[in-house]
Amino acid sequence: MEKELRFKKEDLMDFVVRYMSKLGVPEEDAKIVGEVLISADLRGVESHGLLRLGSYYGSRISKDYIDPTTPFKIISETPTTALIDGGNGCGQVVSFKAMQMAIAKAKKFGLSAITVNNSNHFGIAGYYSMMALEHGMIGICMTNSQPLVAPTYGKTAVMGTNPISVAAPSQKEYPFVLDMATSAVAYGKIQLYDKKNEKIPLGWGIDEDGLVTDDPTKIKPGGHGALLPLGGMEITAGYKGFGLAIVVEILCSILSGGNYLTQVGSPSKPEPTGVSHFFMAINIETFRPLIDFKTQLDDMMTLLKNSPLAVDRDEILVAGQREFEYANYNNINGVPLIKPIVDDLIKEGEKVGVFFPIEKVLKNN
Amino acid sequence: MEKELRFKKEDLMDFVVRYMSKLGVPEEDAKIVGEVLISADLRGVESHGLLRLGSYYGSRISKDYIDPTTPFKIISETPTTALIDGGNGCGQVVSFKAMQMAIAKAKKFGLSAITVNNSNHFGIAGYYSMMALEHGMIGICMTNSQPLVAPTYGKTAVMGTNPISVAAPSQKEYPFVLDMATSAVAYGKIQLYDKKNEKIPLGWGIDEDGLVTDDPTKIKPGGHGALLPLGGMEITAGYKGFGLAIVVEILCSILSGGNYLTQVGSPSKPEPTGVSHFFMAINIETFRPLIDFKTQLDDMMTLLKNSPLAVDRDEILVAGQREFEYANYNNINGVPLIKPIVDDLIKEGEKVGVFFPIEKVLKNN
Repeated sequence: MEKELRFKKEDLMDFVVRYMSKLGVPEEDAKIVGEVLISADLRGVESHGLLRLGSYYGSRISKDYIDPTTPFKIISETPTTALIDGGNGCGQVVSFKAMQMAIAKAKKFGLSAITVNNSNHFGIAGYYSMMALEHGMIGICMTNSQPLVAPTYGKTAVMGTNPISVAAPSQKEYPFVLDMATSAVAYGKIQLYDKKNEKIPLGWGIDEDGLVTDDPTKIKPGGHGALLPLGGMEITAGYKGFGLAIVVEILCSILSGGNYLTQVGSPSKPEPTGVSHFFMAINIETFRPLIDFKTQLDDMMTLLKNSPLAVDRDEILVAGQREFEYANYNNINGVPLIKPIVDDLIKEGEKVGVFFPIEKVLKNN
Repeated sequence: MEKELRFKKEDLMDFVVRYMSKLGVPEEDAKIVGEVLISADLRGVESHGLLRLGSYYGSRISKDYIDPTTPFKIISETPTTALIDGGNGCGQVVSFKAMQMAIAKAKKFGLSAITVNNSNHFGIAGYYSMMALEHGMIGICMTNSQPLVAPTYGKTAVMGTNPISVAAPSQKEYPFVLDMATSAVAYGKIQLYDKKNEKIPLGWGIDEDGLVTDDPTKIKPGGHGALLPLGGMEITAGYKGFGLAIVVEILCSILSGGNYLTQVGSPSKPEPTGVSHFFMAINIETFRPLIDFKTQLDDMMTLLKNSPLAVDRDEILVAGQREFEYANYNNINGVPLIKPIVDDLIKEGEKVGVFFPIEKVLKNN
């Protein structure tokens, strides 16, 4: 276990704003990027948190792969819909504003859908779907991403891990928040097994011949092999995950006229990405009283959590529960960052001449 | 392989209408039920076709578990949304009308969402999502269903196989039509392995202790054991299929105030079902020219189908393709029904005094 340092959210946010300002990102926009990244660290989704500040955002802005001013433009708009050109800006900025717009439209007209092309990596999809919660709405968010996943019976990575997030408000229980890649697992998980010299379960990925493998070294999307869609092989219904990944493409890239499949660039390569996103808000009060919805969602979650456990299992976890528990703990005890990430942030700061507040590390850790 | 008989669609439709009329179903409604059931047989989804006419519909109407007049009522409505009480009628009838309403609303207002409670089994979800295609829209349809699936780390069937269908229009290629249960497989598939005395792949289901099993006899949802959600076990991301099944519940039953999870009755048991559905239509022209969308969807499907094949594989199948190929063949050669289903339809007809047109079996088969 890596040593974990903890910081106040405000101190990290202050660093992100100073760092991104140096790169030409307006202060208000930098706050949005910081908010989305830090919320991932708070929720225990470290892979999408400040770990990415330099590699996915800062270094790409400094090389002109991302426009720091996020000059997004509304291409078409109706009372319930919009198509937005993300201006090759910060994915978080256009996404935050697109979801705000979706919520405003759903407030007036019951529901709304907004599709965005020409954008970049936007952090966790769950951040945007959850924005709907405090407005008494169901929030939906999807994005395409660089090719890592093979279609069923294929052997090459042509699809992204294309995540889907759906959030719904509850009364006493934690809100329901699903935030899932449509691949069986994230590539990072396979890399982790590789580092530990361990075999992976069958169903996570395929080798260069398209055959399922338990050897993580055989899965290097872009080079050879690929991740499998949710469901794994054909016999365990991997074609369903394949289908879901294409639904994400349809709502993100085909509806917006954006890049799709292998056209999408990788944030870890020296190329523009042209990512597409999709946002939807459904105003619950349009259908029935919000309190009735929330109470019934509580009841359903209680029924799920109280249903009989498999042997040797302690708890049935409903989507989002674990992340809310992490966030509650971390909001009190500070945002956790492992030492290598902190070291990296210090270096990233130095590149543009801003200091990471290492002296403000919380004493109690 | 069972002997297959083929019939003209019109002859089967005529039988369904005469049969359901005897049971008190208005002619117009009976045509809707017939249309949805026969389209399943045409598309090769025999499990949801005329096989069910007696067991899921006729016998249940005659026992008063389903109201043959489908007295559905609109509970709340806005220009973009509606909540409908299905009146415990024929699921197909209220669903057909709800999707028609969704399409009309999306034509005027860009998109729409309609949720239905107090309904019954509605056949294939894909029928309703596909209704959007000829209107240049993306169609979405979901339904909850009787408990067959255990949540991750549970051991009891508390969730339905809760299917999701998404359809999108193309230009030259077949339309994209995903129609998938959120469970790893259908229960029928496990029963088939049981009949053949074969082991099932790990990931399809669990035994009475909640442990994954390759023995199909250990999976009898309602008695002992359960199906697993899409993804299978926790290690292969079954919690994602679990999350998707709950998304279906949220949009169908929680948004409509309908029965959820174990409250949903089984169409094969002597009880009302109280099924809930969800329908959505997204008007593509609201975002961008329809022809551009269709052409880009064609291009994406071509890219997928031309991507390199795994060894010993012939073809990458995009969702819906196989079903359209079946339907094309069967539209020319007749609706295929295996002999046991025909025998059953003859018997069902005799119960209410109508004759199945066995003399009209097509000569060429």
